[in-house]
Amino acid sequence: MKKIYLVRHAQSEFNEKGIFQGRLDSDLTPLGFVQARMVAKFLQDKEIERVITSPQRRAYKTALTITDVLGLELEVDERIREMSFGVLEGRNFWDLFSQEREMMMGWLKDPVKNPLPTQEPMEEFEKRILSFLEDLKTCDEKNIAVVGHGGTLHGMVCLSLGLGLENLWSVHMDNTGVSLLEYDGNGFTLAYLNKLCHLL
Amino acid sequence: MKKIYLVRHAQSEFNEKGIFQGRLDSDLTPLGFVQARMVAKFLQDKEIERVITSPQRRAYKTALTITDVLGLELEVDERIREMSFGVLEGRNFWDLFSQEREMMMGWLKDPVKNPLPTQEPMEEFEKRILSFLEDLKTCDEKNIAVVGHGGTLHGMVCLSLGLGLENLWSVHMDNTGVSLLEYDGNGFTLAYLNKLCHLL
Repeated sequence: MKKIYLVRHAQSEFNEKGIFQGRLDSDLTPLGFVQARMVAKFLQDKEIERVITSPQRRAYKTALTITDVLGLELEVDERIREMSFGVLEGRNFWDLFSQEREMMMGWLKDPVKNPLPTQEPMEEFEKRILSFLEDLKTCDEKNIAVVGHGGTLHGMVCLSLGLGLENLWSVHMDNTGVSLLEYDGNGFTLAYLNKLCHLL
Repeated sequence: MKKIYLVRHAQSEFNEKGIFQGRLDSDLTPLGFVQARMVAKFLQDKEIERVITSPQRRAYKTALTITDVLGLELEVDERIREMSFGVLEGRNFWDLFSQEREMMMGWLKDPVKNPLPTQEPMEEFEKRILSFLEDLKTCDEKNIAVVGHGGTLHGMVCLSLGLGLENLWSVHMDNTGVSLLEYDGNGFTLAYLNKLCHLL
């Protein structure tokens, strides 16, 4: 049984300020560095052989803490960079919700039917996530940690379970929430989603 | 925001023996009683107003521990009784897997396309779960705990997210694993799946 631990990045400065991030880049907050350390400790007894991260700073810094604790090399993969949310990036998320409620609700309900203006096309997003999943299926390592973003990790959950990206925002992941995908050579199972015990 | 805490029943005697349970009935094990107590404590600060359980003994006993700790009445609902797995109930689960591997794998991969012989028809199962979900949406209480089974709670997750029952076994819940569905009046979000922090 192959185990793929999906780790959403720790709290970033833009998370703290409520800024809609996407392709933008910000560093971890002091709390974020503590969260990263705690999730690294959680992964310590999981016999992780490989850690793959998105190149963006909030994910990279989280993953670097993990590889430091586990004594592993860090691998960067462009395919799990966050989805581009287009022209809305940089806006305050809660302002956006109050000012563009209908657009934002429609997008959360079904981002395939109601994409945001100038966002990354969903077919391209799907293509890069499926290609990444395919490589995970066929690689030799059995226990792998993937550090990424809400969009890309939700995408991995939806597409590995054979669901469409319509449901991309029907799952939720907090900062350093861990989700476990198991692959038995036949199909994927979601063993848990958004585990946060390490922050207790 | 309405919060629906889905709690899979604690360990039963048939769980311990690896017996494929479905409509069969068995009591909790000593470990099961401890797990029930621990999940009850976890729910204590969640301002739960209503606890609903399947009538089957393993769920009912788990729920009774929860209502004892929370000081609430216990409500029984026939619609969240476990799916009937038909003639295979009572067989050892792992024997079944080694003897009927292809049938069992096909079923786990897609129980709509590959139902078990004489199992409850999937349309009837879907109908009772959807009817139960509809009542939850429209009731006055905001924080509700539902104690049920793998089949019925997975069904609630799949159907509330708008997924088909093809994916019924693509999610996983351990004994007393807690999953949180949030309902904002518009749609459901799965905030976490199979949380087990209370057992640490």
